[in-house]
Amino acid sequence: MMSQVYDTNHVIKYYECDMTTKLSIPMILNLAILASNLQAESLSIGDDFVHAHGLGWIVLQYDIQIKRRPIVGETVKIETVAKEFTSYFANRDFNFYDEQGELLIEIHSLFAMMDMTKRKMIRIPDEMAAGYEPDVVKRIKRGPGPESISSDDEILHDQMYAVRYTDIDFNHHVNNSRYFEWMIDGLGADFLNSHEATQIQIRFEKEVGQNDIVTSQIVLDSEKMRTKHRIMVDDQLSAEATINWIEA
Amino acid sequence: MMSQVYDTNHVIKYYECDMTTKLSIPMILNLAILASNLQAESLSIGDDFVHAHGLGWIVLQYDIQIKRRPIVGETVKIETVAKEFTSYFANRDFNFYDEQGELLIEIHSLFAMMDMTKRKMIRIPDEMAAGYEPDVVKRIKRGPGPESISSDDEILHDQMYAVRYTDIDFNHHVNNSRYFEWMIDGLGADFLNSHEATQIQIRFEKEVGQNDIVTSQIVLDSEKMRTKHRIMVDDQLSAEATINWIEA
Repeated sequence: MMSQVYDTNHVIKYYECDMTTKLSIPMILNLAILASNLQAESLSIGDDFVHAHGLGWIVLQYDIQIKRRPIVGETVKIETVAKEFTSYFANRDFNFYDEQGELLIEIHSLFAMMDMTKRKMIRIPDEMAAGYEPDVVKRIKRGPGPESISSDDEILHDQMYAVRYTDIDFNHHVNNSRYFEWMIDGLGADFLNSHEATQIQIRFEKEVGQNDIVTSQIVLDSEKMRTKHRIMVDDQLSAEATINWIEA
Repeated sequence: MMSQVYDTNHVIKYYECDMTTKLSIPMILNLAILASNLQAESLSIGDDFVHAHGLGWIVLQYDIQIKRRPIVGETVKIETVAKEFTSYFANRDFNFYDEQGELLIEIHSLFAMMDMTKRKMIRIPDEMAAGYEPDVVKRIKRGPGPESISSDDEILHDQMYAVRYTDIDFNHHVNNSRYFEWMIDGLGADFLNSHEATQIQIRFEKEVGQNDIVTSQIVLDSEKMRTKHRIMVDDQLSAEATINWIEA
C-alpha cells in the first residue's frame, strides 16, 4: 500500500530563529509536529478526535539529519508520511525542502499511543491509523538512537531548569522542543554560533511533569565533534540525545 | 497626512498556544513585531536596512488590551500603523481581528532608535521614518504605563531565571516576549488556566544581557484582580508591568 503523503508550506518567522538568523534547533520539532497535526486534521483524526477518546500520540524517538537550516523569511515545504504501523508503534518521516526543492532536513520518528488517564501505552486503535493508509508490519526497524552517557564520561556542563508555564502545550505535556532548549543551552553562544548540528538523535524515556525541575547534563567528545546530552529529573532519566557538529 | 496601514494574516500554530489552547500572552508580542517587520520590509526599511546603518528599533512600552485571545487554528488579521514620530520617539498601534472582523487585541506601543555600537538612543533618521508616512509631532502622549511595585507591597512570588541561548533573537537581544514568560510563570497553572488578562502594561527600562540571571517578582492585588510585576538584574530594574485579570 502507498501511505498518504501530506505537505504544507511554512514561512520561517523571526521568533522561530536563533541568533544566527537560522531556524532554531528546538523549532525544527515544532514545525514537524505542525505538519503531522495538519495531516491528522485533514483526515479528521486530529487532536480533537484523539483526545475525545482519552488518547494521545507520544513521540519516543527522533533521528534528525540537517543539511542546512533555513533562514528567516524562507518558505519551506514540510512533507510528512506515517509509514509503518505495528500494533503498538508507528513511524513517521518528515522532509523539509527549500524553494529550489533542495532537501534541508530529514527526520525519522517513532510514535506510540497513550491512554491519557491511565498514563500507559496502549494498542493503536484501527480508526486512529487507517486514514494514513500505512503499511501494517510485524516489526519496525529502529535506528541505533542516541549514545548514552556512561559513568566514564566527564560531564562538561550541568544545569538545572524549572519547567515554566509556557513550556506546557495544550496536550498538558512539556512541549518536546523544550528538551532541546535545555540540552543545547549549556553549550553557550560561542559554540552554538560557530557550529552547525548535522545529526541529532533523541530518545524520550519518561515524561517531565509540570512542576518538575530538570537537570541538563552535557558530555563533549571534541575529537568526534559530538556532544552527548541527558535530561534528568532527580535520578530518573527523562531523555537522552547525541548531536554531531561541524564548524559553521 | 494619513499614515501607512499594513496588515497580514496569520494562522495560530499549536506551539504559539498555552495549555488553554489560546494564543499565549508572550506570543502576542511576537505576532505584533512580526507584522511591523513585514511592513518595514515591504517599504524596504526592514531589519537588514536598519542594521546596515548600525541602528536598531527598541520598544520602550506596550499597552495591550485583550478582548479575546484567539485559539489554535484560527486565522487572525494583524493590522499595524506607525502613527506619530517626534525626533526621538515613535508610536505604533497594532490591532488583531478574527475572521468575523471582531477586534481581539489592541496594542499601543512606543519605540525609539538605538545606535547599536554605542548602545544609546539617537535621533530617528528621516530615511528610517519617511516610508511610514507618519504624523510628525512635537510630543507623543504616553499612557500612564504600569504601576510600580512599592516598598509597601508584599512580594507574592520571587523566582530567578538564567537567560537561555534560545531567549536571544537575531537582534542579539533577549526577545521581548521572554519578559512575559518570566513575569507570568510564577502565577502558576491554576491561576493562569482560570483567569484571562484584559489589560497588560509593560515598560522596558534596561536591556537584559545574554549572560544575565533575572529575578521575576510578583505582587498580587486580589481586590482589584491585578498583578504587578518586576524583572530585576541584581538591583537594577529591567522591566515592570501591571496586568488586570478577570475570571475565565
